Amino acid sequence: MSGPRPVFFISDGTGITAETIGHALLTQFEGVNFETQRIAFVDTYDKAQLASERIRQRGAHCGLRPIVVNTVVDGTLTDIIAESGALMLDVFRPFISPLESELAEPRQPRVNKAHAMVDYKAYEARINATNYALTHDDGMDVRYDDADLILVGVSRSGKTPTCLYLALHFGVRAANYPLTEEDLENRELPKRLRPFRKKLFALTIDPERLRQVREARRPGSRYANLEQCKSEVSIAEALYRQENLPVLSTTHTSIEEIASKVMSTLGIERQLY
Amino acid sequence: MSGPRPVFFISDGTGITAETIGHALLTQFEGVNFETQRIAFVDTYDKAQLASERIRQRGAHCGLRPIVVNTVVDGTLTDIIAESGALMLDVFRPFISPLESELAEPRQPRVNKAHAMVDYKAYEARINATNYALTHDDGMDVRYDDADLILVGVSRSGKTPTCLYLALHFGVRAANYPLTEEDLENRELPKRLRPFRKKLFALTIDPERLRQVREARRPGSRYANLEQCKSEVSIAEALYRQENLPVLSTTHTSIEEIASKVMSTLGIERQLY
Repeated sequence: MSGPRPVFFISDGTGITAETIGHALLTQFEGVNFETQRIAFVDTYDKAQLASERIRQRGAHCGLRPIVVNTVVDGTLTDIIAESGALMLDVFRPFISPLESELAEPRQPRVNKAHAMVDYKAYEARINATNYALTHDDGMDVRYDDADLILVGVSRSGKTPTCLYLALHFGVRAANYPLTEEDLENRELPKRLRPFRKKLFALTIDPERLRQVREARRPGSRYANLEQCKSEVSIAEALYRQENLPVLSTTHTSIEEIASKVMSTLGIERQLY
Repeated sequence: MSGPRPVFFISDGTGITAETIGHALLTQFEGVNFETQRIAFVDTYDKAQLASERIRQRGAHCGLRPIVVNTVVDGTLTDIIAESGALMLDVFRPFISPLESELAEPRQPRVNKAHAMVDYKAYEARINATNYALTHDDGMDVRYDDADLILVGVSRSGKTPTCLYLALHFGVRAANYPLTEEDLENRELPKRLRPFRKKLFALTIDPERLRQVREARRPGSRYANLEQCKSEVSIAEALYRQENLPVLSTTHTSIEEIASKVMSTLGIERQLY
């Protein structure tokens, strides 16, 4: 009986790249039980030594060779980490030399330069879009001229987190409009949304799942009642069909997938921050 | 005179992994001008053909061989994309066989399984944390018993986007408290924060940068005046020292880095979603 296989995501920065590719790799081995840890900001000899020792000890303790998904750029630090005895998966290494040949120039190992103006522009785009999402959340501000897109859906169908994700990662100004009971009774697109038809994207959700989400929020309420959820979803979906809006069900969809599908459907191309 | 080198991030999913590793690789070649595009959800023969043709045409048009950062798992689709003639950087390929040997089992190519319960748990953790961040933003709700951490700082020092990022990506319940003029005049930690000293993390920012950010928000206001910004930052920093709070300057720091440093300083370990 062996325990979970230890996996370390190690980086000289935040570790987000290492963890992103690491998770994607591990999902290819669904039969294996993994225990994952991130070690971020490994950018000095001392930190590399500490990391190496921690990995070695974990391996000794559990009796399984650890796996390291590594994005540390400095080769001397990587060598220290490798002394832990772990299986080293160096995320950048396999791609650097093909890129060097193709581009006919050697890489210049990224140093922590300030890149002040570029950083500011990216930061501002993200912050401004986040502020936009916050002020245009849940129909609070319904002036949509500046919106890149507007998500429409019943309460708790996934609009707010998707808007925040789009803002933080793509600098997209995403508003969201909750379909109220009045809107649903009218069985037509609310007047204030009509001028922005090309910016609209509709979210739907399985009524039973909606019930669970609403129940967690307001236990025992009419709002969380299954019949109420079924009725709202069914009227909303009829409305989407009638208005010919692009629709996605959020029931089995991650926030990343919703965001990505909304952008590709509406033809919004943005670089990932 | 050649234009920018075309780079495509191609995936059978959202393309976020491909783009994350792609950006990290491209920053190693700072002298080269790149033009990047994402092609997501390439999961059928037809979509792979379309992608391949689009890449081929882009290369023919600009006279430079395109580069593809590929995370499509299905080898037959990858082969079709490779027919475009692009330099193929297959993100997973170099790591699969070392992992197969180490784990002594073949990978099982990830299919789009629903994994319903796991998905729900992750989704809920993210949504609940996001709701927490929204209701505990900017000192709105100051009941912090449930908080994993509380960011403290003057207005516009980067608290809100960091809290939202922590929520969406790590399911961390992050509150934030803006230091008001009254707090700054008192030159001590606000009473309501004192019971949660171990959860506090302070943000600071260069006063000139703060002036720019505030000026964009409220042009010509006292709030955006340089002297006002200098005074607030200097009093806040003195307060952080006096109270011995961990501090980070957000001036040249990305949201990812702030989030990651806050977590590692406070010893909060969470898996990235």
